[in-house]
Amino acid sequence: MQGVCPDEGIMKISVKVPATTANLGPGFDCLGMALPIYNTITIEETVLPGTGIEINVINDNATSDELLMEHLPMDENSIIYKAVELLYNSIGQTPSELKITVQSQIPIARGLGSSASVIVGGLLAANELLGHPADEVALLSIATEVEGHPDNVTPAIVGGLVLTSQEDDGSIIYKKLDWPEEWNITVCVPDYELSTEISRSVLPKEVPMSDAVFNAKRLAMFIQAVNSKDADLMKYALQDKLHQPYRMKLVPGLDKIMENLKHEENVLGCVLSGAGPSIIVISRKINLDKIKSIIKNTWEEMNVKVNIMTLPIENEGAQIINHE
Amino acid sequence: MQGVCPDEGIMKISVKVPATTANLGPGFDCLGMALPIYNTITIEETVLPGTGIEINVINDNATSDELLMEHLPMDENSIIYKAVELLYNSIGQTPSELKITVQSQIPIARGLGSSASVIVGGLLAANELLGHPADEVALLSIATEVEGHPDNVTPAIVGGLVLTSQEDDGSIIYKKLDWPEEWNITVCVPDYELSTEISRSVLPKEVPMSDAVFNAKRLAMFIQAVNSKDADLMKYALQDKLHQPYRMKLVPGLDKIMENLKHEENVLGCVLSGAGPSIIVISRKINLDKIKSIIKNTWEEMNVKVNIMTLPIENEGAQIINHE
Repeated sequence: MQGVCPDEGIMKISVKVPATTANLGPGFDCLGMALPIYNTITIEETVLPGTGIEINVINDNATSDELLMEHLPMDENSIIYKAVELLYNSIGQTPSELKITVQSQIPIARGLGSSASVIVGGLLAANELLGHPADEVALLSIATEVEGHPDNVTPAIVGGLVLTSQEDDGSIIYKKLDWPEEWNITVCVPDYELSTEISRSVLPKEVPMSDAVFNAKRLAMFIQAVNSKDADLMKYALQDKLHQPYRMKLVPGLDKIMENLKHEENVLGCVLSGAGPSIIVISRKINLDKIKSIIKNTWEEMNVKVNIMTLPIENEGAQIINHE
Repeated sequence: MQGVCPDEGIMKISVKVPATTANLGPGFDCLGMALPIYNTITIEETVLPGTGIEINVINDNATSDELLMEHLPMDENSIIYKAVELLYNSIGQTPSELKITVQSQIPIARGLGSSASVIVGGLLAANELLGHPADEVALLSIATEVEGHPDNVTPAIVGGLVLTSQEDDGSIIYKKLDWPEEWNITVCVPDYELSTEISRSVLPKEVPMSDAVFNAKRLAMFIQAVNSKDADLMKYALQDKLHQPYRMKLVPGLDKIMENLKHEENVLGCVLSGAGPSIIVISRKINLDKIKSIIKNTWEEMNVKVNIMTLPIENEGAQIINHE
């Protein structure tokens, strides 16, 4: 796809990037899935030379403007600026005279990949603007460098459910898996934020060998369950000892919601979305109203408001939008 | 299948049990595979009451008789006796007047599941003798209790490549995976033994979080590679940081063999078999002679003799043999 030139050769490129949920229980730092909530990142060359880089954010979600500014500063500290700069640098250039606009629908600091989406959107738009100097491998590598890990940026770029890993040389390998259509995803977004930085800081540097083995087995069962559409195996697989127990205290209510959903036959599992605080419930497509009311009631008893969405998986990754 | 009564109602049951290789690199304590080398365990009721339990071993492999006796004592300390006793106890009985014979072809203390095979053989023969009081779930559970972990006993009972895990209540869940026919298994058995006990004692109780994540990813990639017959992914998957690095010093030559095979295009990976010292090389079915000679030469330079076998996977588990 090509960007278009709305005015005397001045390029304007928009990219629509999906939200993502990482980890999915046992897949700490390697599983991620794209979801149909989108940020749209637009980059246009400005007419006058010397105007520098301008970043604007249009707040289309329930996040406060203060929070949005904190996580997406409109200057050179912005992750989107860093991503675009790295791409320009990779071909020996420096970005200038660009107007970047982020139309933000993905909730901020909720564990739904908002930062990955702006990194990916900025990169893809800049790559289009520059005539595709970077291939997918290079884009994945730059995006991971800015984000710190590949489990959100990979599904944001390629869509679907993705198993991903960063090699020692920085390159990313990934495999897309077919998510069984009969399994439902319920995304529960509470009305408080949790920064990934804080949520990472509570994780230990060493873990018991038995916990390492516990998680490896569960992740293996997860992969086999998805390949064979085996709901009982998935129920066994959707457990974690590497990150969720440590983050439990940062997400008040998570333990109660897990406990209250435990005996629901159609629930395959309840996991933290990324570093939290959002929660993902994976279930059969039966009795969804009951599942939702259990989550809503549990959080409301703790005075936490929650936005609950039933969403399909987004099998497409970031898309360039033509400006007609 | 039914056991037969060769002489005036006296029962004699034989069970043929395959060797097994566990771990397979990243699958520490949860992956195992059956191989076509067999122990045959025969249990017969003796004619005279009060004769107790007699255990005999017929040494059909290259193991010394001393080593055989050390690992398979012919008294009540024998793992086979413990397994049979647990089964009898589970139905409120005590074993007596039994003659147990182990025809041993699986190399002892080489990481090829010889102990799992006699446990499984004894259990299945006794279960047949008693009229099947235990189902597969119960047999797996008793066998795991005696062996300590389920990754050898499960493929010994059910055959094939198996992902297995023990639940908190002691029960075993497992899933059989289809091993791609185009992948070759080369089993390399050196002429020295290594007890599982020693090989377990060198493992740490805590591991770096990064190693836990490394292994979980690799195991997930292993499962996906087997499901999609993806040789390149398998190459990436066949790495481990949870047990092999710690056991390296107990298996002189392993590091050199791994290094010497690293640049062989058709080699997908080289891993310890169980707790070692045997090594399993997984490769495409191309240039097998070169792979074998690299292993043979590397070990011979260190004055280690090695028996190298190219074996298919054994898809059948333990089988009861009728005595006509």
